[in-house]
Amino acid sequence: MKKKENKVGSGLKVIPLGGLEQIGMNITAFEYEDSIVVVDCGLSFPADDMLGIDLVIPDVTYLKDNIDKVKGFVITHGHEDHIGALPYVLREINAPVYATRLTMGIIENKLKEHELTKGTKRKVVKFGQSINLGQFRVEFIKTNHSIVDAAALAIYSPAGIVVHTGDFKVDYTPVFGDAIDLQRFAELGKKGVLALMCDSTNAERTGFTPSERTVGATFDTLFEEHKNTRIFVATFASNVDRVQQIINSAYKFGRKVCVEGRSMVNIIETARNLECISIPENTLIEIEQMKDYPREKQVIITTGSQGESMAALSRMAGGMHRKITIGAGDTVIFSSNPIPGNEKSVTKIINELIRKGADVIFQDAHVSGHACQEEIKLIYSLIHPQYAVPVHGEIKHLKAQAKIAQSLGIEKDNIFILSSGDVLELRKESAGVTGRVPVGAILVDGLGVGDVGNVVLRDRQHLAEDGIMVVVMSLDRVEGRLVAGPDIVSRGFVYVRESDELIEEARQTVDEALQRCLDRGITDWGKLKNTTKDTLSDYVWKKTKRRPMILPIIMEV
Amino acid sequence: MKKKENKVGSGLKVIPLGGLEQIGMNITAFEYEDSIVVVDCGLSFPADDMLGIDLVIPDVTYLKDNIDKVKGFVITHGHEDHIGALPYVLREINAPVYATRLTMGIIENKLKEHELTKGTKRKVVKFGQSINLGQFRVEFIKTNHSIVDAAALAIYSPAGIVVHTGDFKVDYTPVFGDAIDLQRFAELGKKGVLALMCDSTNAERTGFTPSERTVGATFDTLFEEHKNTRIFVATFASNVDRVQQIINSAYKFGRKVCVEGRSMVNIIETARNLECISIPENTLIEIEQMKDYPREKQVIITTGSQGESMAALSRMAGGMHRKITIGAGDTVIFSSNPIPGNEKSVTKIINELIRKGADVIFQDAHVSGHACQEEIKLIYSLIHPQYAVPVHGEIKHLKAQAKIAQSLGIEKDNIFILSSGDVLELRKESAGVTGRVPVGAILVDGLGVGDVGNVVLRDRQHLAEDGIMVVVMSLDRVEGRLVAGPDIVSRGFVYVRESDELIEEARQTVDEALQRCLDRGITDWGKLKNTTKDTLSDYVWKKTKRRPMILPIIMEV
Repeated sequence: MKKKENKVGSGLKVIPLGGLEQIGMNITAFEYEDSIVVVDCGLSFPADDMLGIDLVIPDVTYLKDNIDKVKGFVITHGHEDHIGALPYVLREINAPVYATRLTMGIIENKLKEHELTKGTKRKVVKFGQSINLGQFRVEFIKTNHSIVDAAALAIYSPAGIVVHTGDFKVDYTPVFGDAIDLQRFAELGKKGVLALMCDSTNAERTGFTPSERTVGATFDTLFEEHKNTRIFVATFASNVDRVQQIINSAYKFGRKVCVEGRSMVNIIETARNLECISIPENTLIEIEQMKDYPREKQVIITTGSQGESMAALSRMAGGMHRKITIGAGDTVIFSSNPIPGNEKSVTKIINELIRKGADVIFQDAHVSGHACQEEIKLIYSLIHPQYAVPVHGEIKHLKAQAKIAQSLGIEKDNIFILSSGDVLELRKESAGVTGRVPVGAILVDGLGVGDVGNVVLRDRQHLAEDGIMVVVMSLDRVEGRLVAGPDIVSRGFVYVRESDELIEEARQTVDEALQRCLDRGITDWGKLKNTTKDTLSDYVWKKTKRRPMILPIIMEV
Repeated sequence: MKKKENKVGSGLKVIPLGGLEQIGMNITAFEYEDSIVVVDCGLSFPADDMLGIDLVIPDVTYLKDNIDKVKGFVITHGHEDHIGALPYVLREINAPVYATRLTMGIIENKLKEHELTKGTKRKVVKFGQSINLGQFRVEFIKTNHSIVDAAALAIYSPAGIVVHTGDFKVDYTPVFGDAIDLQRFAELGKKGVLALMCDSTNAERTGFTPSERTVGATFDTLFEEHKNTRIFVATFASNVDRVQQIINSAYKFGRKVCVEGRSMVNIIETARNLECISIPENTLIEIEQMKDYPREKQVIITTGSQGESMAALSRMAGGMHRKITIGAGDTVIFSSNPIPGNEKSVTKIINELIRKGADVIFQDAHVSGHACQEEIKLIYSLIHPQYAVPVHGEIKHLKAQAKIAQSLGIEKDNIFILSSGDVLELRKESAGVTGRVPVGAILVDGLGVGDVGNVVLRDRQHLAEDGIMVVVMSLDRVEGRLVAGPDIVSRGFVYVRESDELIEEARQTVDEALQRCLDRGITDWGKLKNTTKDTLSDYVWKKTKRRPMILPIIMEV
């Protein structure tokens, strides 16, 4: 088999271990012979039916099984869906991490929290710089995104070059640093690119995503229009450019700025240390100093733009913040869009703020960080790849990008919409999915990683729907009689005072059923438990049309 | 007090018992001296934190306390958020129900289901017709909405006229029946209207809502473009006009139509009996006949456009439908927008359909049923009310309408943004909120109405997050010792096989703590239970950073 492969040259294997089928949990292995490079290592947030779960990380069994091949993790940018699983995965696969400056700054904060800084090799990479990883060379290329220092990657292998855009947009007038390095994309295109893996998030949207700078102009207008009020701006903690522009407007209008929300304070601090943000002297103030300035000279930049109930904005709106309460005479600007699934909680906080008397602005103070259709077309036209592998998005987004690729002349057969776990083998001569590796979502709940599975989730769902009825009894098996019970205790089923009668009648029904068993000499636990379950379940359904979980417990004395 | 009121004439009291602060659960009492008229009687769907709840109905204590005054229920249209609570409320307040033809048809289906047809007086009212209810007269005025036979109400009282729009839009070219009766609105405006209560749902949207007919043109285009595929159209069950237009396009293109989804079948049946829809002969076929026609000659109209997991569309996409499976060669048109909160489940079904190979169209085949800003301005300009009371919407929508009213010259002090339970007293001379009545949301779970309250919901939330640990023991209080247990049983906490050791260690920890109590002669149940809870809770938190519900049960033998 090795020989046969060698005839046409080894293939480059592209193996997404997550990130397709959903937004989040981006991680892709690139494998060539004895070398594996891993691009990104993100988490995703739990789906609605993952009750009680804190976060979700990818199953990296494939990397563990090939641990000797793994040369390193190459990270495109510092968002949670690209770096969030690192602290978990590094514990199992201790390979070096490569990233640009701010990205590495954010990763280091994370490793510190997990006490992993000592054991992890890290290297900050500059744009234009390449690193050698086994048979691979990986070049970092400047792009623009809603976080500073985002990179695309050119992955060189003996089988050819793959360009991976990471999350990106084309911003000709970025707030910090350079515009996306379109010239380098063009050079690579000239050289010949085997495959392009391009961000699909906005592939359904026509046109161009506006420059981040347009939001700065909007802030100026809004600050002018709300001269006499205290201004709050809620945005994403990691959007350093956005914060920069809010600070610029504040400075222009002679306002002091206070930053609220732990995650935002941390990132601003990191960005400041790395000189990714420039804050005029005497502009930033601590929350304690706010009382020294009139309200109309204050701006509070805050987390919580997604309606997160524990974030600073919710606490300030609900009067649960130690220092600030939002009310009449305040203007709150949402510099964000609801992430899909958060619409309801965002609406809830907007209504809450309006009810408290605040003036709320929730349109036009945000731009996306992802490329729309015309930008995607631009990248394809510069790169001119042989194969297209749309990434980052749900299948509807991937399909939308596939349509764009087709419209640009790429053959349908050369476009691959992958599922996580697919092994796509690329050669100049041919390409195709040649295998599968194990993949999956590992649930993190508190300290537990992977100890909550489908059975537990199903139980939580059941408990959430109708609660639980516990039936306890003490059995003297020798004499074949109950010495205590059955007693019924319920939680989450029905308000107890109203159900006294119901529970007592249920208890009698179960008692009678158990006595009938015991009278017939049945003392087998399994049978007694089943009798209890069936009898109680039928009774409760008949009376209430509900199906609480029923948990019979027999004690032997 | 009576005398004092009489000096300036009695006030007309407007008392919303629900429907403000949220979309849904619309019900408003109009009270003048000894007469109460109730407008609408809707339900709302449970919020995300109302685990296991089926639906939510308004607390009508105020009506029960004034039952002799209640002259009747006047219903604007047949949507659940306007009629859904009737079967529950009528059981407590048996007053006659007044509605237009199709609205009453839908109400009757509902009453049949709840076996309430016999006891409830009902009267079908025509547009232009008035009914006398105590000191009130109520006139039904033709409007347009996403359901046929929607009405606005002119409520005449000795204190003046209130116009209540219900849910409405202005459609100059409706599919069925007449356009909104703008002339009547103008006449009333000339006569002098005390207050306008106008739909706020789309008050944030500029411009005009397009005519329902525009969707018909879209269907023609889409049917032309997808001539060679089987076509599915998912829409709201109650949108009879939409179904009419799908049938029209199907007929034009020589396709047979099959309707799937119980609720849609029922409403089409009712609409057909009342001649609100006209279906050409030999167009409608049963699902069993579909095999007799080629795929490209079929249209399936279906429920499930909101991604409801049990609806026909989800079942057809997931291969769980008895007759139809959607796949390659099928076109699925979403003739609907996601209702806020349903975005994720709609996206999920779209992705599922694309994955199965279907061509999915989820844009441009829908128009709203609610008035946008220009339509709201039109109604205000025709009615020219003294007072404005925005209704139907969350506070952000109500505020948006208040701004429109102000822009049209209505004084800020004459605009009332009410909360449910406010008593707004209206007189020509003055108006204001003069009191509060009890209001609230009553949760319906299975057969139980109101037996699930905050304690039960909190328990369900707790169970959903981290599951439950039940600790049972048998106590011989006389001897002050445990004769069995403590045993621990958990559900929804952690996958058991992985936690054997954890549970056993927890058991020992609890056992030791209990022994220490018993050794000191403590046999009080409360103290033993608290010791169990505290010990186990601390242990589990330390080991897992989770807080499952802990339920100690002591049996005495």
